[in-house]
Amino acid sequence: MNVLVLHGPNLNLLGTREPEVYGSLTLAEIDGRIRDRAEQLAVGVEFAQSNAEGALIDRIQAATGSFDAVIINPGGYSHTSVALRDAIAAVAIPTVEVHLSNPAAREDFRKVDLVTGACVGVVAGFGWRSYVMALEALVARAGEHPAPGSPDG
Amino acid sequence: MNVLVLHGPNLNLLGTREPEVYGSLTLAEIDGRIRDRAEQLAVGVEFAQSNAEGALIDRIQAATGSFDAVIINPGGYSHTSVALRDAIAAVAIPTVEVHLSNPAAREDFRKVDLVTGACVGVVAGFGWRSYVMALEALVARAGEHPAPGSPDG
Amino acid sequence: MNVLVLHGPNLNLLGTREPEVYGSLTLAEIDGRIRDRAEQLAVGVEFAQSNAEGALIDRIQAATGSFDAVIINPGGYSHTSVALRDAIAAVAIPTVEVHLSNPAAREDFRKVDLVTGACVGVVAGFGWRSYVMALEALVARAGEHPAPGSPDG
Amino acid sequence: MNVLVLHGPNLNLLGTREPEVYGSLTLAEIDGRIRDRAEQLAVGVEFAQSNAEGALIDRIQAATGSFDAVIINPGGYSHTSVALRDAIAAVAIPTVEVHLSNPAAREDFRKVDLVTGACVGVVAGFGWRSYVMALEALVARAGEHPAPGSPDG
Amino acid sequence: MNVLVLHGPNLNLLGTREPEVYGSLTLAEIDGRIRDRAEQLAVGVEFAQSNAEGALIDRIQAATGSFDAVIINPGGYSHTSVALRDAIAAVAIPTVEVHLSNPAAREDFRKVDLVTGACVGVVAGFGWRSYVMALEALVARAGEHPAPGSPDG
Amino acid sequence: MNVLVLHGPNLNLLGTREPEVYGSLTLAEIDGRIRDRAEQLAVGVEFAQSNAEGALIDRIQAATGSFDAVIINPGGYSHTSVALRDAIAAVAIPTVEVHLSNPAAREDFRKVDLVTGACVGVVAGFGWRSYVMALEALVARAGEHPAPGSPDG
Amino acid sequence: MNVLVLHGPNLNLLGTREPEVYGSLTLAEIDGRIRDRAEQLAVGVEFAQSNAEGALIDRIQAATGSFDAVIINPGGYSHTSVALRDAIAAVAIPTVEVHLSNPAAREDFRKVDLVTGACVGVVAGFGWRSYVMALEALVARAGEHPAPGSPDG
Amino acid sequence: MNVLVLHGPNLNLLGTREPEVYGSLTLAEIDGRIRDRAEQLAVGVEFAQSNAEGALIDRIQAATGSFDAVIINPGGYSHTSVALRDAIAAVAIPTVEVHLSNPAAREDFRKVDLVTGACVGVVAGFGWRSYVMALEALVARAGEHPAPGSPDG
Amino acid sequence: MNVLVLHGPNLNLLGTREPEVYGSLTLAEIDGRIRDRAEQLAVGVEFAQSNAEGALIDRIQAATGSFDAVIINPGGYSHTSVALRDAIAAVAIPTVEVHLSNPAAREDFRKVDLVTGACVGVVAGFGWRSYVMALEALVARAGEHPAPGSPDG
Amino acid sequence: MNVLVLHGPNLNLLGTREPEVYGSLTLAEIDGRIRDRAEQLAVGVEFAQSNAEGALIDRIQAATGSFDAVIINPGGYSHTSVALRDAIAAVAIPTVEVHLSNPAAREDFRKVDLVTGACVGVVAGFGWRSYVMALEALVARAGEHPAPGSPDG
Amino acid sequence: MNVLVLHGPNLNLLGTREPEVYGSLTLAEIDGRIRDRAEQLAVGVEFAQSNAEGALIDRIQAATGSFDAVIINPGGYSHTSVALRDAIAAVAIPTVEVHLSNPAAREDFRKVDLVTGACVGVVAGFGWRSYVMALEALVARAGEHPAPGSPDG
Amino acid sequence: MNVLVLHGPNLNLLGTREPEVYGSLTLAEIDGRIRDRAEQLAVGVEFAQSNAEGALIDRIQAATGSFDAVIINPGGYSHTSVALRDAIAAVAIPTVEVHLSNPAAREDFRKVDLVTGACVGVVAGFGWRSYVMALEALVARAGEHPAPGSPDG
Repeated sequence: MNVLVLHGPNLNLLGTREPEVYGSLTLAEIDGRIRDRAEQLAVGVEFAQSNAEGALIDRIQAATGSFDAVIINPGGYSHTSVALRDAIAAVAIPTVEVHLSNPAAREDFRKVDLVTGACVGVVAGFGWRSYVMALEALVARAGEHPAPGSPDG
Repeated sequence: MNVLVLHGPNLNLLGTREPEVYGSLTLAEIDGRIRDRAEQLAVGVEFAQSNAEGALIDRIQAATGSFDAVIINPGGYSHTSVALRDAIAAVAIPTVEVHLSNPAAREDFRKVDLVTGACVGVVAGFGWRSYVMALEALVARAGEHPAPGSPDG
Repeated sequence: MNVLVLHGPNLNLLGTREPEVYGSLTLAEIDGRIRDRAEQLAVGVEFAQSNAEGALIDRIQAATGSFDAVIINPGGYSHTSVALRDAIAAVAIPTVEVHLSNPAAREDFRKVDLVTGACVGVVAGFGWRSYVMALEALVARAGEHPAPGSPDG
Repeated sequence: MNVLVLHGPNLNLLGTREPEVYGSLTLAEIDGRIRDRAEQLAVGVEFAQSNAEGALIDRIQAATGSFDAVIINPGGYSHTSVALRDAIAAVAIPTVEVHLSNPAAREDFRKVDLVTGACVGVVAGFGWRSYVMALEALVARAGEHPAPGSPDG
Repeated sequence: MNVLVLHGPNLNLLGTREPEVYGSLTLAEIDGRIRDRAEQLAVGVEFAQSNAEGALIDRIQAATGSFDAVIINPGGYSHTSVALRDAIAAVAIPTVEVHLSNPAAREDFRKVDLVTGACVGVVAGFGWRSYVMALEALVARAGEHPAPGSPDG
Repeated sequence: MNVLVLHGPNLNLLGTREPEVYGSLTLAEIDGRIRDRAEQLAVGVEFAQSNAEGALIDRIQAATGSFDAVIINPGGYSHTSVALRDAIAAVAIPTVEVHLSNPAAREDFRKVDLVTGACVGVVAGFGWRSYVMALEALVARAGEHPAPGSPDG
Repeated sequence: MNVLVLHGPNLNLLGTREPEVYGSLTLAEIDGRIRDRAEQLAVGVEFAQSNAEGALIDRIQAATGSFDAVIINPGGYSHTSVALRDAIAAVAIPTVEVHLSNPAAREDFRKVDLVTGACVGVVAGFGWRSYVMALEALVARAGEHPAPGSPDG
Repeated sequence: MNVLVLHGPNLNLLGTREPEVYGSLTLAEIDGRIRDRAEQLAVGVEFAQSNAEGALIDRIQAATGSFDAVIINPGGYSHTSVALRDAIAAVAIPTVEVHLSNPAAREDFRKVDLVTGACVGVVAGFGWRSYVMALEALVARAGEHPAPGSPDG
Repeated sequence: MNVLVLHGPNLNLLGTREPEVYGSLTLAEIDGRIRDRAEQLAVGVEFAQSNAEGALIDRIQAATGSFDAVIINPGGYSHTSVALRDAIAAVAIPTVEVHLSNPAAREDFRKVDLVTGACVGVVAGFGWRSYVMALEALVARAGEHPAPGSPDG
Repeated sequence: MNVLVLHGPNLNLLGTREPEVYGSLTLAEIDGRIRDRAEQLAVGVEFAQSNAEGALIDRIQAATGSFDAVIINPGGYSHTSVALRDAIAAVAIPTVEVHLSNPAAREDFRKVDLVTGACVGVVAGFGWRSYVMALEALVARAGEHPAPGSPDG
Repeated sequence: MNVLVLHGPNLNLLGTREPEVYGSLTLAEIDGRIRDRAEQLAVGVEFAQSNAEGALIDRIQAATGSFDAVIINPGGYSHTSVALRDAIAAVAIPTVEVHLSNPAAREDFRKVDLVTGACVGVVAGFGWRSYVMALEALVARAGEHPAPGSPDG
Repeated sequence: MNVLVLHGPNLNLLGTREPEVYGSLTLAEIDGRIRDRAEQLAVGVEFAQSNAEGALIDRIQAATGSFDAVIINPGGYSHTSVALRDAIAAVAIPTVEVHLSNPAAREDFRKVDLVTGACVGVVAGFGWRSYVMALEALVARAGEHPAPGSPDG
């Protein structure tokens, strides 16, 4: 099983950007923790980060055939991108949206999320662990019956 | 470590209620899976379900002193209860909101969530596994440094 | 055939509460008129009233197996309760919403009704007779072909 | 007692129009069922259908002196016609609004109803029986004391 | 100079319809008062009333060539008719909107007026005199320099 | 009979201010035309202009006992002043709101009018003549039976 | 193949009405161009215009059995008519909405279109050619496989 | 004179719950201060607290006959409960709404208050003293002429 | 201790203005009652009334150094004045907002209050007694520990 | 004549992406059909697709001098991109917006279109044929008098 | 060249009012800095401050003939005054709006600005320097070709 | 001191794009004027333009360490980009938003600005001079005490 982890805009700044909101780990450190967990689970994992909406869409599209699941932190695009939502719906690869912080406790313009509706689900508010939780869920979900996608899966 | 798992209105019907949305497991079966995982993690876990907003608030209040964390699926009260939000904010026990389904993919009146803002975070869309993910996150979070509550915790 | 008649908050005050809006009959008198009509129709009927949202949900859930239909006047919860709507949708017993008065002719906050969408239909504005009309419709609907639930049923 | 039954736009297509929403009975068949029930109740009943807002208003106005009550299914005009509401308020003949389907379970633009506020009440969601229920209620209401129009009437 | 006076829906009921809102004069009496004033001003005046949006539009269109000005009381269509507005804008005959009552002091749905923006102006709240005021203004406006349509005209 | 004519903010600039919207007459010239008409009608008329909301309220209050009617052009305060509305409602002197231009044909923020609801009515879009029309209506209304204030008055 | 071309309110004024918005061709000239194209395509075409919402609905209903497709320019009713939308949905004849101008570049109240959702699609902004484009598309669509109605059809 | 003091959800946590918002007094201490003042005023006072909307409604209903006035702090239900408002309106016992903090200075969802409209008035922002102020006002109001309920009472 | 009592627009008309809403006491009589109570409390009190938003702001600003607290009834400016709110926030003198009537039970445009958020709290619905209650609270609050401004103060 | 055809985000997935919405043709097949038609019309046509908002803007800007018209399917950017709208307005090359499906029949967030207002017009709902229709219209429009851009052009 | 600098409500409190938002300079000190810069630029400058909307309008009107430009900080009136906007539009003297703080980073009710649309532009967020920047821009703009008012001016 | 000047989408078209809105200077000419002023101020300045949201974010991020301040004209992204706002907040380099035109005087969709809240301030409406004003302010602000970022700085 292979999982693509996609980091959206400004996540490359992690560790320096508003640490009281996003924590002091760098993105490389977070990727390290995800990779460690993936190895324990015997799952392949690949990472990409981009500040560009179009590049994120390109990566999601390119995941077809290579990846069995996607974990995406759409960052600021969560609240403004129909195109990203359409990409996730189009490729039909199970996708989980994650957030480091809890958008419900922040500014009003972070309360609309256009992307979530095309995802399997969302994990938000657990810092770097949001990614690991999503990874574990995708792996567990894939290894069970009934088949992935069904409510009990 | 002791965790209170609170199921809100209509979750006692699980397994019979709209299985295409909520899955075919009963609530007892879900509680069983949570308990199994809690035992593996050496965590005490207690369950309660109520259809009454006031009873849910009573349970949250009573958790002080007995429980180190709360997992709550507020069901329909997610979208309408300021009182429940206030209870979670008042007791100051780390609380995670969970949903079986992904409210972002459902009716418009499920897109406002008054409770999430008082929680550590939210896990939605993974069926019964949403609870287990929340449990694992609360345990991991409690066992680490920096102290729980900080973004890297 | 057995029908559960559920009266929501403040309906126990009927006869004393704002009679120019709700009429001067007491709830017991209304229940009497419903029972009389039920007897004529050879239908069993049971009554319950509660001011508590959770208790109303409990009764709806408990109706499964014992009742073939529900008549509910959700009172003030009509405008604020997603949980009640979910309960009605969950038990899948044909349910009719009734109102004594005509909410469309009253305050703005009575113009949103979160419950109706989960019901077979609504009868509003006919005083106590709203209940009897709902009863007659549920009985007629049950005794005909095509099966209940279809538009011509 | 004489009752005017007014069918609004597109109801002449009944039986052919979206039967999964509106049922398979034709308008003539529905009128037949209403007439049968009116005869049982010894009530005169007259039918009219129009796709034109103005013609519906003309009929409501002309009802003065000839009819003791009006049953109207305003169809799509329910959501857009202040003029129709004004006509009902102007003639001061007790009027009941009916719908075959349950608008609360349909598109958002069917959730605003400008006409209901000028009516005695509304019956929605019971197919052709919505009309018969309205008829029975108007007859019962007219034959009782206190006088029609009071909450217990 | 010839002026068309157009009465919209339900105005034919004047004198009987909610006299506490609209007064006790009949439409014929109001037309008489307008005609009297028109004769004093040596102006031709013609009257029409319709409950139909389309018929009102037909009359506005037919005014071209025969009438120098239009006075319209759009009644309930004031709040819902783009088509009527378009008709007034299309014929480019100076048109004044009148109301017997003052919509700003009534229900919320009477506070949006789609028609006024295509008119020269509006006179509301003076009962039958609203029409006469509009007539006098149109005549005065036509007899002066600078030409009608300019702000001082 | 004595009438107070109140000009709100920026009306003292008439003749110089955006003449394509407001016309090229000065305020003194407009007052002259109103005075001429008042003399013909044997009515006393007094004029005041202020740019200050409070001063306009002072004048309305002071009108009690001295004036039988008020004509007010609230200018920009039409859209923002509850206090002005309250003053008109408080003194209970028949008041007519006038506008030179037609606010319905201008910017969106001119479409809400907080003052009109407390007035007898409104005349808008006829340039300086809006004032004269209001004057004539107030005089005619005062000289008739039934008494001023009733719908036919 | 037979196509009904329906022109809504005020389109009979074309050539005289605001030519800078709608062009200088008369409706007869536009119908002529549509007929020319229909002849080239060997398609029967019939024209109707009405200012009345109800008459437009009548024509749509009457199209069943005689016409294979409808082209409708609903004019001002585009923004206000649920009844028209219902008629199009009811007859289930492929219908295309056309506009001469581009409503998206005009007033705000033209940005809501209640009718489009019941049509195959929309063509707007090409003057008289909008009709011809719709005609060509309906003909092409009808003559191909997969069957009309499918996305590639 | 007997007064019922009703504390809504989470007020039982006072002294521990967010003391920077709600103060450090416990509910028992607040009740003590209210009782002291009641004794000075020779007024009977009874206290109740519940986290349940339905229980609060039950208490309001049961007040009839036993209490001459009600003081209620609806807590989070202030913003979401039509049923509570209806209960207050139904029993027709003079009721005052109190808040410890000033909701106008807090989150947006605390700015809508559905309950206040059914009360005599509201006292907010004075900590425990809000209750005492309400008590004093209810006593003073009851002992004066004109009778309670009139504006000067 | 010195308290400034500020009456906003139209309050000088008290006793004559809509007595069914505001009571029949004059402003002088209300000031008398406040002064009587202030003398009992050994508090200096000064009164000012203005219809002008700017003058009210001037008085609030001038209170610095002379007054220890302000009681303000902003009247109609409650709903429209950011400048008044800014003045209260700027001078940092404890300020209480009062209303004679209960705005929550009146028109919709009285439901937004821009001023309250800068005040200690609000007292509304008790007629002239609203002022006295505010006075008593300010005095009590000033004489206690913890210091004024804290939730228990 | 040269026409640039611009495909927005996710259109490169055509044929695989939700075929029940978008059809089973690939983008290359659609381009082939457009090219065939362009050849018949003796028009040069060039194609580009990008998932990136910025790249689409770059292409629109670069069209100046090389292309006489643009056909754009902005996909998800239709609903969120002011920058794309500005680009179209800036280059002043006649541009037509196309959609394969009919956005008016889909999710609410597809009902706002920020791009259309800067285009000549829109063609939506005809699958691949939407492009061909736009092409034909642009060619016809360019070859006629009066000049392109005028309403009859 | 002469420039009028107008300070709106509460700006006279600068240096004492919420210094963490507005800085610790007094208004006199700010005026001093503006005057210094004006002298360097050989520009006449005059200052006025008022808490009254009407007085600010008076000053703007009086500027005609004496001043070549206006700099205004409308304070709280920015968000509520149509009358101020109208005054600026009426005098047609180039006007720049300034703010000390950045309203976009403050409360929601500061996000609507009714005044800016009538100004040349806005400078916000630079403390006292906002005024100096506006001054420099007005001077530079006046001394250049093309004439002031054109986009390159 | 080094300043990065970032031009957003479509600004590369300056001089050709809608000159009546944006002026006739090219972007190179504007950059020249900024550079001239920077040289006078002995400040390093670098320029970049991109039509891509992601590329603008990349440049803002890369500014850390190399630049002391950023001037950004986000163009159309001002109204739609949370990601850009987040980038500015993340790098914590003082940033000023500039606009050539005055968005408050343009279309409604330009009235929401998501970026401004993360900036020091905004300068809009002065054509190319907006940039120079921002530059001067950033330089002045950097050279003074108290330190940059404080309200008087």
